[in-house]
Amino acid sequence: MRDSYHETLDELTDQLVSMARSVGSMLDRASTALLEQDLTRAESVIAQDEDVDDLNLRVEEQCNELLALQQPVATDLRLVTGALRMSSTLERMGDLARHIAKVARMRYPDPAFPPSVRPYFVEMAAQASAMVQRIGDVIGNQDLSLALEVEKLDDRVDQLHRELLQTLLADDWNGTVEEAIDVTLLSRYYERFADHVVSLARRIVYTATGTRYDELEKH
Amino acid sequence: MRDSYHETLDELTDQLVSMARSVGSMLDRASTALLEQDLTRAESVIAQDEDVDDLNLRVEEQCNELLALQQPVATDLRLVTGALRMSSTLERMGDLARHIAKVARMRYPDPAFPPSVRPYFVEMAAQASAMVQRIGDVIGNQDLSLALEVEKLDDRVDQLHRELLQTLLADDWNGTVEEAIDVTLLSRYYERFADHVVSLARRIVYTATGTRYDELEKH
Repeated sequence: MRDSYHETLDELTDQLVSMARSVGSMLDRASTALLEQDLTRAESVIAQDEDVDDLNLRVEEQCNELLALQQPVATDLRLVTGALRMSSTLERMGDLARHIAKVARMRYPDPAFPPSVRPYFVEMAAQASAMVQRIGDVIGNQDLSLALEVEKLDDRVDQLHRELLQTLLADDWNGTVEEAIDVTLLSRYYERFADHVVSLARRIVYTATGTRYDELEKH
Repeated sequence: MRDSYHETLDELTDQLVSMARSVGSMLDRASTALLEQDLTRAESVIAQDEDVDDLNLRVEEQCNELLALQQPVATDLRLVTGALRMSSTLERMGDLARHIAKVARMRYPDPAFPPSVRPYFVEMAAQASAMVQRIGDVIGNQDLSLALEVEKLDDRVDQLHRELLQTLLADDWNGTVEEAIDVTLLSRYYERFADHVVSLARRIVYTATGTRYDELEKH
């Protein structure tokens, strides 16, 4: 049986998993809002962002309490200070999902981009969704091999981001400047979202092993 | 005389001040690189970003050590966990300065934007610079009134960001799509940089008083 100290540490992990699930669900709905001009889903993402902000504050309070009362050391200490930084990152990912939803809402009932770039966003949305899904699993079960997979998915998102920006500069780009701005920002939101997942993966490897691999270079 | 425990806490504060100074200097050089097509300065910002990343890692290690060995409570504990989050934010601000420098370098020897939008960037650069300068002072001397001033400066940056994006959509915009993309991203980098300063200010108020005011809404 787990003592109350370890139960509290487990709870902390559960809260991070739950944040990752919430943020994943926000991202998926934001992507649907964007790809299907679904106003209800856009609104639901924008409303939910506050819940993630609240979760972040709760994680911080729980970490402070744990540190004050239990004085963890070594791996446990890294777990607690790592949780502090991870929940900030997850909160920021929620903000990015909200940004995507806001662009969808602002352009509703029109799509935010011309049909020619839709396939890019379909794939970016799918990759980012797979990444956040996976990171929730990694946080829950500490499977470090999954953490490395996340990097590969991120490489693809970076590639899509670069190609998408190139598309805007091609001779056959026939969208408006407004659409070019929307596409630029949306693409950046997905790319940043994916970068944050990578930084979570690296954080988890560090927490579990005490070894750091190169800090995120690509954001 | 301060005991070694309080000396270590002071050192932690000094490190955050020093990070804020480095990031401020990076931003100023990135702005000069952008506004004056100064390649040397752009390169120096890009090179310096690693130093800020290293400082961030050192702060984290110092915090972990403090927590393990000294077991601070109450305000001191908030100071340490706050430092963890603040140094992440400062590191991210360094990334944004690097992003600005990279756009300047990519377009060199041309400017990244047409002359018509230059005044916006001149003012955004000045506001962001004043904000990071001020936040360094706030971290060092805990003057909470300065923390509130930072919010006002941020309001102006947000306004400039909105106006700049409007400029791209106006009928008399005569730049290219590439310039529109650069302007959009650059403006967003400054706006995010300023938002991060606001979140540092709010963090400092929380650390000093234990009271939180509304979490940053505007990013």
